[in-house]
Amino acid sequence: MEISAEQQTEPEFDVFARACPSRPVLEHATGRWGVLVLGGLHYGPLRFAALRRRVDGVSEKMLSQTLQTLERDGFVHREAGEGFPSRVEYSLTPLGRSTAELLIGLIEHLEASMPTISAAQLHYDAMRSAD
Amino acid sequence: MEISAEQQTEPEFDVFARACPSRPVLEHATGRWGVLVLGGLHYGPLRFAALRRRVDGVSEKMLSQTLQTLERDGFVHREAGEGFPSRVEYSLTPLGRSTAELLIGLIEHLEASMPTISAAQLHYDAMRSAD
Repeated sequence: MEISAEQQTEPEFDVFARACPSRPVLEHATGRWGVLVLGGLHYGPLRFAALRRRVDGVSEKMLSQTLQTLERDGFVHREAGEGFPSRVEYSLTPLGRSTAELLIGLIEHLEASMPTISAAQLHYDAMRSAD
Repeated sequence: MEISAEQQTEPEFDVFARACPSRPVLEHATGRWGVLVLGGLHYGPLRFAALRRRVDGVSEKMLSQTLQTLERDGFVHREAGEGFPSRVEYSLTPLGRSTAELLIGLIEHLEASMPTISAAQLHYDAMRSAD
């Protein structure tokens, strides 16, 4: 509730400003697991266990925390179905989808650039070891 | 040198696979400071001190480490000029520029979505405190 007044008078958001509320949001969407969770849900809704297999290497605890943060920011929708044990499914909201599309573009760009990047890394290391 | 054989036989890169060398690269480009350094250099070359002012809140040590990592991956070019103290300038490589353009697109999307995101956060917190 404390930030509702600020919301109305905030003229612009700037992630480069340290106190801007957009900076933590950028960190959630691009963080170590945030980007892979949003990217992983880009192809359709998933249950927790399936998402955890998709985001290879994430612990249960980290996946759970990441999903909560992304749900709070409005990127991810959590749907608990009927029955016991309840079937919980995670999907992207419209905001999550538009954001995931940009992230997938970035991921594909980096994957496609890996030969260039690996060559740069080898060159950098060779120059360093020659010093 | 150890990874050169792997490089030639690697059929595809996949950030979702935990051992893929593209995953750390994604983390460098989207990490807490990586994204802001690449985004900050998008508007032109900068010296260390100017870049540090642009990326508000970064420590000297973290900026230095981030720049080294991004230089090793081939995103950033470090140019040390003549004279003493030497004038060192950081700029984006072609790979850095194409990557920064995608990151700026993501940043602008998130900044523009902040009213939606802040509303989602307030709603989430209100639902939690009502429990």
